[in-house]
Amino acid sequence: MMPSTPTFTTRLSEAARTVEASLEALLSDKVAPGEIARPPRLMAAMRHAALGGGKRLRPFLTIEAARLLGVEGQGPLRAGCAVELLHCYSLVHDDLPSMDDDDLRRGHPTVHKAYDEATAILVGDALQTLAFEVLADPATASDPSVRSDLVLGLARASGLGGMVGGQLLDLSAEGRYGTATLSEADVRLLQMMKTGAILAFSVEAGAILGQADGTTRGSLLDYGRALGAAFQVADDILDREASAEALGKRTGKDQEKGKATLVDLLGMEGARRECRQLVDKAHACLDRFGVKADTLREAVRFVVERQV
Amino acid sequence: MMPSTPTFTTRLSEAARTVEASLEALLSDKVAPGEIARPPRLMAAMRHAALGGGKRLRPFLTIEAARLLGVEGQGPLRAGCAVELLHCYSLVHDDLPSMDDDDLRRGHPTVHKAYDEATAILVGDALQTLAFEVLADPATASDPSVRSDLVLGLARASGLGGMVGGQLLDLSAEGRYGTATLSEADVRLLQMMKTGAILAFSVEAGAILGQADGTTRGSLLDYGRALGAAFQVADDILDREASAEALGKRTGKDQEKGKATLVDLLGMEGARRECRQLVDKAHACLDRFGVKADTLREAVRFVVERQV
Repeated sequence: MMPSTPTFTTRLSEAARTVEASLEALLSDKVAPGEIARPPRLMAAMRHAALGGGKRLRPFLTIEAARLLGVEGQGPLRAGCAVELLHCYSLVHDDLPSMDDDDLRRGHPTVHKAYDEATAILVGDALQTLAFEVLADPATASDPSVRSDLVLGLARASGLGGMVGGQLLDLSAEGRYGTATLSEADVRLLQMMKTGAILAFSVEAGAILGQADGTTRGSLLDYGRALGAAFQVADDILDREASAEALGKRTGKDQEKGKATLVDLLGMEGARRECRQLVDKAHACLDRFGVKADTLREAVRFVVERQV
Repeated sequence: MMPSTPTFTTRLSEAARTVEASLEALLSDKVAPGEIARPPRLMAAMRHAALGGGKRLRPFLTIEAARLLGVEGQGPLRAGCAVELLHCYSLVHDDLPSMDDDDLRRGHPTVHKAYDEATAILVGDALQTLAFEVLADPATASDPSVRSDLVLGLARASGLGGMVGGQLLDLSAEGRYGTATLSEADVRLLQMMKTGAILAFSVEAGAILGQADGTTRGSLLDYGRALGAAFQVADDILDREASAEALGKRTGKDQEKGKATLVDLLGMEGARRECRQLVDKAHACLDRFGVKADTLREAVRFVVERQV
């Protein structure tokens, strides 16, 4: 596929830089208005969980979707940070010994390894709370209906009917709670809940900030869903192919745990074909926006070609 | 002290009944709009965590504070349920093996005992998310600024600068993270964060729903803070006095873990005196409301005299 254009790469790294700075400020030791105190150990562990890592894909999608609708600045940046905080909380809890039991994340010790298990549970809890606090803060949007729509959207994408529900299904898929034979529909449902919903919301958040009409918001949501699905097929393909060195984390993990992936169900060629179809579908959702949407178009290719 | 009046007891049990019914509906297996699916195991474990227990003190405070300002019905009920869901999430996570390691809660197996540790972590996560979802839903308040103020208030009371921060300090107070010698100021800070902030918000939520002016909201918040502090001193006194049978949970736990309580710091007589002073202080905050606030007045006595 095509290499990323300079504009895309610049915007992606620029977004990552401002997101990092914004997260640093949100997670500083300085007590904020309305707070009683910030325990230094908790703050240090939260910074360990949320700073210095990742491409910041989710905030990038929020920022770019909002920019497409003419909204820039603190609003999209803060909303993007909220999604990223939510994502980081899910990683901290997923890594716990009773969940996926991972010692490393992006080459660094996971929070329960660097600190301890109790601290890691509280870090995840507090990162989730902070995500909602950031969205509900007037600094994110002066219009309170935008703030409450953002909260509602993130809650629906991440709760029992979204990400957390998907994580429970994922544990079930390991056969923890009785025999698990997953159909193709089950695997798709699981992936849509576990990772797709938050990615789709990352894009939808931009539409909420832009106070888009129903059609525009629908197109962007469909784009986000296709991108989320493409992300997951690409992840399944990567998991099968990549070496442990290249990824910096254990691979073939799903196979190891006997979990069915789309590669098992569709075969490698079938998975690649589906990935291409999803890229086309995501692109088609952006037709109405013309060249202004080129960055979001490139984002889909980036998602399926990412090496980390 | 005085026995509770019939009005008070009726209102308390009526609130508990409607809260229970409302939580049952929120935690049903039926997939709600905007959700992909509700995994049955997760829902059952969430119901285990949130249904059939407790006096529902926090929602009662929200409902009564709102009633004082002339607001009744679904709004205060839903906001109260959100605070209760948040409270239940904190209990599920606090009971985990790496935290307080409790096998029983109100005489029943804790969630990680009845299910497993991974499920209990996800149950807590999803209960927290649901709390914010309920607050941000238009069914709670038609005015979006009320919804977003409720979200912001609950997030601040329960996150890193409130309840979760307090739980981290509580773990530190056990000496887990180096020697812990807590001053009186430390113990007060810890208690204000861990339990006081959410109790105070339970009352403040009623003021937000009633769109109270600053003075009224301030008086109710001060009342909530005094009530929260009284709750905790009473808890420390109970913990020292009560027998395991009467409480239905292990007691003297704080002593066992070497944690300082206000009884250690003030002596039993000093703690009792402080408790009486806090009751008076809470009552004084209600002076401006006249007899209409009698239920909230009785709530303070109820809190310090409760046997469970």
